[in-house]
Amino acid sequence: MTQSLWGGRFQSAADETAFQLNASIQFDRRMALQDVRGSKVWADALVGVGVLTPAENEQIQTGLAQIQTEFEVGQFAFHPTDEDIHTAVERRLTEIIGAVAGKLHTGRSRNDQVATDFRLWMLDALPQLTGAVNELQRVLVGRAETDISALMPGYTHLQRAQPILLSHWWMQFFWMLARDVERLQALQTRTATLPLGCGALAGAPFPVDREGMAEALGMGSVAQNSLDAVSNRDFAAEFLFVASMIAIHLSKLSEAMILYTSAEFRYFTLDDAYSTGSSLMPQKKNPDHFELARGKTGTIIGKLVGLLTTLKGLPSTYDKDLQEDKPPVFETMDTLLLILPVLAGALDTLTVHADRMEAAIDPSMLATDLADYLVGKGIPFREAHHLTGEAVRIAEVAGVTLADLSLDAYQHIHPVFGPDVVDAFDVRKSVARRSATGGTAPNAVRTQIERAKALLAEK
Amino acid sequence: MTQSLWGGRFQSAADETAFQLNASIQFDRRMALQDVRGSKVWADALVGVGVLTPAENEQIQTGLAQIQTEFEVGQFAFHPTDEDIHTAVERRLTEIIGAVAGKLHTGRSRNDQVATDFRLWMLDALPQLTGAVNELQRVLVGRAETDISALMPGYTHLQRAQPILLSHWWMQFFWMLARDVERLQALQTRTATLPLGCGALAGAPFPVDREGMAEALGMGSVAQNSLDAVSNRDFAAEFLFVASMIAIHLSKLSEAMILYTSAEFRYFTLDDAYSTGSSLMPQKKNPDHFELARGKTGTIIGKLVGLLTTLKGLPSTYDKDLQEDKPPVFETMDTLLLILPVLAGALDTLTVHADRMEAAIDPSMLATDLADYLVGKGIPFREAHHLTGEAVRIAEVAGVTLADLSLDAYQHIHPVFGPDVVDAFDVRKSVARRSATGGTAPNAVRTQIERAKALLAEK
Amino acid sequence: MTQSLWGGRFQSAADETAFQLNASIQFDRRMALQDVRGSKVWADALVGVGVLTPAENEQIQTGLAQIQTEFEVGQFAFHPTDEDIHTAVERRLTEIIGAVAGKLHTGRSRNDQVATDFRLWMLDALPQLTGAVNELQRVLVGRAETDISALMPGYTHLQRAQPILLSHWWMQFFWMLARDVERLQALQTRTATLPLGCGALAGAPFPVDREGMAEALGMGSVAQNSLDAVSNRDFAAEFLFVASMIAIHLSKLSEAMILYTSAEFRYFTLDDAYSTGSSLMPQKKNPDHFELARGKTGTIIGKLVGLLTTLKGLPSTYDKDLQEDKPPVFETMDTLLLILPVLAGALDTLTVHADRMEAAIDPSMLATDLADYLVGKGIPFREAHHLTGEAVRIAEVAGVTLADLSLDAYQHIHPVFGPDVVDAFDVRKSVARRSATGGTAPNAVRTQIERAKALLAEK
Amino acid sequence: MTQSLWGGRFQSAADETAFQLNASIQFDRRMALQDVRGSKVWADALVGVGVLTPAENEQIQTGLAQIQTEFEVGQFAFHPTDEDIHTAVERRLTEIIGAVAGKLHTGRSRNDQVATDFRLWMLDALPQLTGAVNELQRVLVGRAETDISALMPGYTHLQRAQPILLSHWWMQFFWMLARDVERLQALQTRTATLPLGCGALAGAPFPVDREGMAEALGMGSVAQNSLDAVSNRDFAAEFLFVASMIAIHLSKLSEAMILYTSAEFRYFTLDDAYSTGSSLMPQKKNPDHFELARGKTGTIIGKLVGLLTTLKGLPSTYDKDLQEDKPPVFETMDTLLLILPVLAGALDTLTVHADRMEAAIDPSMLATDLADYLVGKGIPFREAHHLTGEAVRIAEVAGVTLADLSLDAYQHIHPVFGPDVVDAFDVRKSVARRSATGGTAPNAVRTQIERAKALLAEK
Repeated sequence: MTQSLWGGRFQSAADETAFQLNASIQFDRRMALQDVRGSKVWADALVGVGVLTPAENEQIQTGLAQIQTEFEVGQFAFHPTDEDIHTAVERRLTEIIGAVAGKLHTGRSRNDQVATDFRLWMLDALPQLTGAVNELQRVLVGRAETDISALMPGYTHLQRAQPILLSHWWMQFFWMLARDVERLQALQTRTATLPLGCGALAGAPFPVDREGMAEALGMGSVAQNSLDAVSNRDFAAEFLFVASMIAIHLSKLSEAMILYTSAEFRYFTLDDAYSTGSSLMPQKKNPDHFELARGKTGTIIGKLVGLLTTLKGLPSTYDKDLQEDKPPVFETMDTLLLILPVLAGALDTLTVHADRMEAAIDPSMLATDLADYLVGKGIPFREAHHLTGEAVRIAEVAGVTLADLSLDAYQHIHPVFGPDVVDAFDVRKSVARRSATGGTAPNAVRTQIERAKALLAEK
Repeated sequence: MTQSLWGGRFQSAADETAFQLNASIQFDRRMALQDVRGSKVWADALVGVGVLTPAENEQIQTGLAQIQTEFEVGQFAFHPTDEDIHTAVERRLTEIIGAVAGKLHTGRSRNDQVATDFRLWMLDALPQLTGAVNELQRVLVGRAETDISALMPGYTHLQRAQPILLSHWWMQFFWMLARDVERLQALQTRTATLPLGCGALAGAPFPVDREGMAEALGMGSVAQNSLDAVSNRDFAAEFLFVASMIAIHLSKLSEAMILYTSAEFRYFTLDDAYSTGSSLMPQKKNPDHFELARGKTGTIIGKLVGLLTTLKGLPSTYDKDLQEDKPPVFETMDTLLLILPVLAGALDTLTVHADRMEAAIDPSMLATDLADYLVGKGIPFREAHHLTGEAVRIAEVAGVTLADLSLDAYQHIHPVFGPDVVDAFDVRKSVARRSATGGTAPNAVRTQIERAKALLAEK
Repeated sequence: MTQSLWGGRFQSAADETAFQLNASIQFDRRMALQDVRGSKVWADALVGVGVLTPAENEQIQTGLAQIQTEFEVGQFAFHPTDEDIHTAVERRLTEIIGAVAGKLHTGRSRNDQVATDFRLWMLDALPQLTGAVNELQRVLVGRAETDISALMPGYTHLQRAQPILLSHWWMQFFWMLARDVERLQALQTRTATLPLGCGALAGAPFPVDREGMAEALGMGSVAQNSLDAVSNRDFAAEFLFVASMIAIHLSKLSEAMILYTSAEFRYFTLDDAYSTGSSLMPQKKNPDHFELARGKTGTIIGKLVGLLTTLKGLPSTYDKDLQEDKPPVFETMDTLLLILPVLAGALDTLTVHADRMEAAIDPSMLATDLADYLVGKGIPFREAHHLTGEAVRIAEVAGVTLADLSLDAYQHIHPVFGPDVVDAFDVRKSVARRSATGGTAPNAVRTQIERAKALLAEK
Repeated sequence: MTQSLWGGRFQSAADETAFQLNASIQFDRRMALQDVRGSKVWADALVGVGVLTPAENEQIQTGLAQIQTEFEVGQFAFHPTDEDIHTAVERRLTEIIGAVAGKLHTGRSRNDQVATDFRLWMLDALPQLTGAVNELQRVLVGRAETDISALMPGYTHLQRAQPILLSHWWMQFFWMLARDVERLQALQTRTATLPLGCGALAGAPFPVDREGMAEALGMGSVAQNSLDAVSNRDFAAEFLFVASMIAIHLSKLSEAMILYTSAEFRYFTLDDAYSTGSSLMPQKKNPDHFELARGKTGTIIGKLVGLLTTLKGLPSTYDKDLQEDKPPVFETMDTLLLILPVLAGALDTLTVHADRMEAAIDPSMLATDLADYLVGKGIPFREAHHLTGEAVRIAEVAGVTLADLSLDAYQHIHPVFGPDVVDAFDVRKSVARRSATGGTAPNAVRTQIERAKALLAEK
């Protein structure tokens, strides 16, 4: 226990299980490089307020640089008494440069230090995540371009509703992810606020240049209130929310992929590299990765809930409960960085069965077009809808499709029907009519694709 | 059932319980005015594409204006068959203007309509919420200005840590809420994207001017993909997240208020108007409202989870599951709009016991200052921390405070201690030393207050 | 405010919004009859300890009986100052019988009173819920009996896996619900523990006969610790968990129903009474109720989370946060009592397309039987699985089914294949082989049905 | 990839990241011993249906025994291609005994196998957890016995309410945990239902003796429906719920401990072995472990939500989403098994400051007794409550306690007050009056303790 950063007033050592419960080194070691980086900037700042001489700082910088290298090459040796990454780094620094290492923690607390490390880690990880999302967006746009001529049934309530372009279908996921990217970027800005220099809670005991440190660490602003700075984990909670939204969007895509690769739909076949089999049933080819993406959505939402619930009603500035903040964030980041490229790869390599899709567009899906045809003849939509509903019922009873119903039958429903009613059953025409912004007409979809590409190019 | 908007193809009526399960009128009636507003803009747009004549539109606008008035004065009569607000409005419009009302729904679906109504409702409600948050922020700044001279113990782990200004303590909540306001504003922008003109899923069957409608409805952009437009509820989920963060911040404030009004702390006394009593114990004066604010945080987080879980893995564009989107949003908005002014009122009217607070600052809270004193004498902080820890233990054993320990005793710990050690125990000096940005020094807190006022003035 | 139960020590009235935030009458009025019932038993008990004379009790019993009637016939008039149901009842009792009403609350607190009322309410509602679950179970067993001859594809990963009986498929939901019923019954027992007589927190100030009261109220035990009795809401949390499990089981059923009524599967057609249409697309027939059941699962899980989060870290015995306990329970109970009969009705009235189901069983689903055939010839299963996998691949490349592959082709894969390989492709034989307990063989399924009926008959 | 259990029909290998996403070996290796145990029983059963000869079984049993030893002594070597524990064991068995190992998986699927392993793991772990809960219960009872003479303020709303025995306070947590133990035992029974012999989904293809296997594995029953058997994870969800309740109870205890070890309460001092210090503030002694217990409650609730959300709406029998079931269960079990002994140790070793507690009982806490005194004089409680409220107000204004108010002052409030009013202010008498079952009177608490000890002895 003599190596703990805080043992001075204590007469007996911690209970071993208690030590284990308290330790965070098993996960906060992931912030090793960020901890070193923050310490280097803090040491520089201590020179500015006269706590360190330039020579002492030189020693510290050299020692920290060596530690950084040890982490980078995987040669840093942790000790059993390293309860957290901050302790480990200071312990090692002392080994390397001796007692002067003990000056580094002046005016700093693990409270502002860990808040800084964690934000720095996030600032390193968020662009990776954005990149992985962008890559999936690129695959979606690629598919939309490739599959531009394919028609498919659009669904509501999982019932065939109206014909759409497959490209249009792919693009919906692009826009969901585009909102996620927007949220990630806003989070990036909000995360780049420096807690360092706020001490344990009350502020540093000398006028350290916090704005300078922020700049050195690539952060746009400094926290304005030390109590808030050491205790708020808004950025972690917001990350888990944004991650949950990404996961929800991926779960929607995954659900569709699971359906569309089933025998009943068979719109897509997955590449073998993105399928798995059964230990019992030799014929099986399962969309496991999409199921995992869907299932992990639950897990990620759970991590969001976990942190929010942990944060509820905390009484002080820093409370130890906050130590629960990092595992959900690390694990969620890992999960998304694993799922996203797999989904991108699976989409990129799948086979589209355009014939199956088009064959699935039965004439009843043009019932709305039939109603619109009546509207064109001056019948109010509500009545047109009702008359078309009758046609659907009659066709169903007769066991034929709407397209097969005779003109006679139509005219029996309403005399305004004419021979031009056949036009209502032309699928490509139906699709082309939906040309307003955001519609499924080929032209509108091409505009969508152009806008999407412009958005991706901006980054 | 004849009045439903969709019964044409159906041969038998809905089961009564099934109808009840399906109906949303009990909650979506809250969007009545938004539904009318959206319909007016849609009718105008239908003129542009030749579906309505100007005369027909005139009739529709007049009818809708009458319906709007009926809602505003509370005289709109719902029918048992009104399964949702859209059905109710169209039914009433038909009663007022006859069959021409049946033209209004041309090219529109309840899918794009409800998405539009809901966004319009949010755009009306969000500024109210922002206003209520701002009002609480104003009270916090007011308290910070009033209470600028009061000292109090700052806590970590609910243990007395270092002395701070009460004003500094109040201000931490200002900054938490400031981030919430930022999130609300970003959400406002993201919500102002128009789904109308996207039909059921595939787009409107004519080139309706969606950008014009967006402008008429005060929205900054139009949804770029019809499938996404009718099915995404990102804005509702994001609202519930932002609301959860607000609630978490209020729960932290509330937890502290509950503690600080307890007999043990007695830092504040609540005004009778913001306290309640006990049916059994005549002496009780309870901080019920803060407890409710804390408790309702759980409820709000639950509503976030509810919607996220509902959204997970939905297969189609529009699925009926989405009907679960509105109650959590409405209820959360109501809850926050009820809590926020009560908390503002309670803070505004409480009595501060500055004497109790200052008396609670015992000398051991200056142990860090004592260590800093040693640092000033050239001792590395880590050693200084250890030496001070020894002093704490010696004083504890002796049953005296750090300030009461003799110079002799100090010099026994380390010869560098001198008579100037008494300075380390001056609370106001301790506070004043923490003058870097965000620190608790009076000057730094005054800067905070100025920045906060400037931020509030911006709105 | 003079009518509040606690105003004595207060000098000013509550702020109006604060009063509104604090009030619970809007939802706890649902426990009116339970509140009266508990009060009647409490008054009887007060006679036992000499607080009430038999004559006074007579007056109180008469007054309470009148109030009970007023609630039953819907004529009880609430006052704006009735902050909760307890206040309302005591206020009304005072109006009816005068000052002696003021004796009823002796030794009792709203803390033990509300805990008692809530448990009584649960004890009334749980059997209703169990009944509704049993009814759905009965419909499932009924379907299993009716549909005993229908074959269908069993799925894993939503891929066709092995043929099963439709009856077997129905019965899986029976067993899920059977576990839920078990949990409901355990909960019923745990809920039947009496808090009354525990006062605000410390116990009643006289030796009231709590065991007698428990018996009078139909509860099996009394709470053993007054502090725990007034503050624990385990039963409410456990209810929300059990409800979540029920909902999850219903969501699984619903997801399947949504799939199986889609055009792609078309295994079932819903009766018109349990379907809805589209306001735009005249041909649509949507499984809205199953979607709502699935969507409301999210909402119910959210309510569980809400209460658990509210309960986390509460500091005292009774804290006002606990007031958040009732709305989620009431709403969840209502939701399940609405969903269950609708789902039961929908299942009971649907049309099964046994031909479609059987047609969906393609020979590749018998690949496991083919491997088992090889096992019968002495080949280890792992090798048999591999050989069969080869057969699948060869058949796939050749564009034929496994059953169409020539004996030659099979013998090319392995010489052990003989003409009897055709037996492996007999679907009914495949099903019949799975006759161990729990398997899909007709005999095993009949056993299942018998056990299920015996279980239902027990209640 | 050649070693996968399912590769036969696949032409290309899995993408590496896809393989990594799919693998579960990193966590399911924890079920190694259970997997071996299940396989041994399965092999025995295969003899019964003639799939294995006794000699083959002998080989398999020997091989499995060796594998079991390798796991027990930590010498089992995993291969990079072992995607899950089942694959690893079968791969190793093949290495040891050759091709006959390939017969073991006959009629079995990883679906029924993993469900069996997981249940076996739970059945091993649940008694450990129950034991750890019992140990904490024992410490609580021990404290209750030791601290039987100490008085303390009881709280509601964190306001001092009525005096109670510290023993009574400790015992409340005993009863909360007693309910948790009840739930754990019910779960134990529900978990002991065998899925093995259900195959992938449809049942085993031969009449294997499932009841015999259940007995051999210590399970009380067999799953009655194969589809349900392989897909239901009720037991995992129920475990996470029971764990959440345990955590909530611990969080309530922890919140109180954090308060009661604060400087403001100072009712308890933690032993150094169960406290931690600050890296910056030498005087700090923090109740970190209780904060972690409180914080981890959020994390555990999050894991419950994660699994429930994952389970919602799954379409098939087995879906790969189910692979998300184990990490939350394993991690939650680990967390509770870490927290429980630390909390037990901390309670066992703390110092009680009975003097501080008793000193905190101010006379106003006897206001209810004062009201009861008036009731004894024949005044209805409601009026007595009001009169006492007046006394409280008058005392507050006068700056004295209720006990210091003169008889004159009391008689001014109501003439019925007599000199015997002083009795109402005797704390020990107040406590002793609460002698009904569950009350805080010493006799009642002793009864509680006896009942608790009897309950613990039963196990």
